[in-house]
Amino acid sequence: MPPPIGTFEILHEDPTSKARLGRLWTAHGPVDTPVFMPVGTQATVKAMAPWELEAEGCQILLGNTYHLNVRPGMDAIERFGGLHAFQDWRGAILTDSGGYQVFSLTSLRKMTPDGVWFQSHVDGTRMFMGPKESMAIQRTLGSDIAMAFDECPPCPCTPEYAHEAVDRTLAWAAVCAGEPRAAGQLRFGIAQGGVYPAERERCAKGLLALGPGAFDGYAIGGVSVGEPDELIMPGVRMTVDLLPRDRPRYLMGVGQFWQMSESVAEGVDMFDCVMPTRLARHGMVFTRKGRYSVRNAVNRLDDRPMEEGCGCMACRRFTRGYIRHLLNVGEILGVRLTALHNIHAYFDFIARMRQSIREGTFASFRAETAAAYGPRPPAA
Amino acid sequence: MPPPIGTFEILHEDPTSKARLGRLWTAHGPVDTPVFMPVGTQATVKAMAPWELEAEGCQILLGNTYHLNVRPGMDAIERFGGLHAFQDWRGAILTDSGGYQVFSLTSLRKMTPDGVWFQSHVDGTRMFMGPKESMAIQRTLGSDIAMAFDECPPCPCTPEYAHEAVDRTLAWAAVCAGEPRAAGQLRFGIAQGGVYPAERERCAKGLLALGPGAFDGYAIGGVSVGEPDELIMPGVRMTVDLLPRDRPRYLMGVGQFWQMSESVAEGVDMFDCVMPTRLARHGMVFTRKGRYSVRNAVNRLDDRPMEEGCGCMACRRFTRGYIRHLLNVGEILGVRLTALHNIHAYFDFIARMRQSIREGTFASFRAETAAAYGPRPPAA
Repeated sequence: MPPPIGTFEILHEDPTSKARLGRLWTAHGPVDTPVFMPVGTQATVKAMAPWELEAEGCQILLGNTYHLNVRPGMDAIERFGGLHAFQDWRGAILTDSGGYQVFSLTSLRKMTPDGVWFQSHVDGTRMFMGPKESMAIQRTLGSDIAMAFDECPPCPCTPEYAHEAVDRTLAWAAVCAGEPRAAGQLRFGIAQGGVYPAERERCAKGLLALGPGAFDGYAIGGVSVGEPDELIMPGVRMTVDLLPRDRPRYLMGVGQFWQMSESVAEGVDMFDCVMPTRLARHGMVFTRKGRYSVRNAVNRLDDRPMEEGCGCMACRRFTRGYIRHLLNVGEILGVRLTALHNIHAYFDFIARMRQSIREGTFASFRAETAAAYGPRPPAA
Repeated sequence: MPPPIGTFEILHEDPTSKARLGRLWTAHGPVDTPVFMPVGTQATVKAMAPWELEAEGCQILLGNTYHLNVRPGMDAIERFGGLHAFQDWRGAILTDSGGYQVFSLTSLRKMTPDGVWFQSHVDGTRMFMGPKESMAIQRTLGSDIAMAFDECPPCPCTPEYAHEAVDRTLAWAAVCAGEPRAAGQLRFGIAQGGVYPAERERCAKGLLALGPGAFDGYAIGGVSVGEPDELIMPGVRMTVDLLPRDRPRYLMGVGQFWQMSESVAEGVDMFDCVMPTRLARHGMVFTRKGRYSVRNAVNRLDDRPMEEGCGCMACRRFTRGYIRHLLNVGEILGVRLTALHNIHAYFDFIARMRQSIREGTFASFRAETAAAYGPRPPAA
């Protein structure tokens, strides 16, 4: 008998940092944290089939409320019995709120207290989305975790704009917390505030003021949206410290290896990022030692796998030279193989991070990750 | 102990037609005929991974001499130990001669007795290919079956041009027959002649005049290159009748279901065609009852698989509505799933055709295929 849906077990804590191993119980099974969630924007992780994600032990995917509402539309999702059935994904799904896309992808936006009027990025159709609409769409999608509708201000923005965006985000969070949910659906609040510590604090505290029943977890939004690298970790650190210890904490859209290990050290549990699949389409390959472009001419005659010692299907069977050729001539298999490898590399990274926490070697894991991937490699 | 490479066993003959079941032994295992060879132009079957073809029981692929010579180039193929190793394909490979691409894809062609000067379709590089070059490239590729360098005249063309093209094809075939081959490599001659019976006869007889040691099998080229449907089968029929009964016969580039069953009835053993994967990219789906476009709006809310009763991975897990959505938003998985299904449908078609020959029901199989797929459906 699994624990009730929404239970978040903290299984182990790292003595050298705030890192922890946890398990979040969803309507589609457990999610072991720290977790990386591949992004399935349009009801698929780009270039991958669900059985390939299943083979990596993937427990949870991210879906995009805004995109799915535009295409295929909620009549189709309803007809097929929800997003899980539509894309035949048997694990858990977290849906974002749509706020990020409404504020970044659309044009001719007009704000109202209840939400935003905008034009669809596909065909210019006039649409409206606010907290009620976002929660209704996510209810139809039937995601395991729905995100509260928020406004993610761009970077740079003025303190005045950040203040107004936090006002709206808090007002909308209160509306979201009162909306009905799909059976077994969890709901997360999102702390915004841009690069302004006072706004971040006001937003996090405002979410908590809605009471423990309002949200099952909390996200840190608006990080890594264009601010300088050295502002990312301070923003994460100060927001995490304001969020309840006993609930999962989700750092949205952040997925560089060093950012993930540093954030886990601050107590973050969940991540998502388009990088492994987006960069795969450009031939960028993630390895334990750093990343490189397999499209480079230097790989033309290279008979090594993309990453030596890697156990993914692409590295077990194919050379860099072959994969470079496929990308060079525009063959889909090239993108499939780099995506397969990068997703494997991400799951391998997270698995090794979890193991290091379990075995008490997380401090050296962090140091190695920073050395291979950090924004400033250590001096030689 | 398998029979010697090049052995062609005729295992069963259909009493109602010239159809036969055969087995051709190559350096990479047996090929059961009639056989459909998926086209792997640039060292991959488009959108598919080799393990997906292996799962279909695929025994032989086609590779393109011209394309592979341009990219990745023969230095790369040599470096990786041949085409099989380069693309990690463990079954057999037939390579075309490059002639078809030289005459259809390139510009500024200049004929000489020894071959053709032309500009590469990729970057305009000046290149030369003739029988010696084609056989040398195929030797480096290390294919199991190399095709003689030929000229496939376009349709329409004048009788004079068809005559000259047959002259060149025969002269080049004689050169090819004298060239060295890779270890265990078989060599097929190609009978051309366009829509002119006298030229087809002259070409087939000219190939045979080179003696039984010149070629291990014979192909019918220049069919289905633009001529009216009603000229296709007569061209096949008259050419097949001129080719030795005890050697495999390969009808190049032909792959509509009704064309394959009618050609098998005339004694053809081997086929290749880009249709299942090319049309997959446009959402065209092959079924036992005919073909349709899953991209059509009528499929938007359809929760049936692409083909009811089909056992392919795509049909076991996904609906038409989902696959239409994927194609509609440009997701690679959409093309992967239609390609997976179409290749499965082709292998299923060939398997059922072989079974019908084995069980003595080929005549009704032909009739059913013509009814579902023929150029002129029977009157209602």
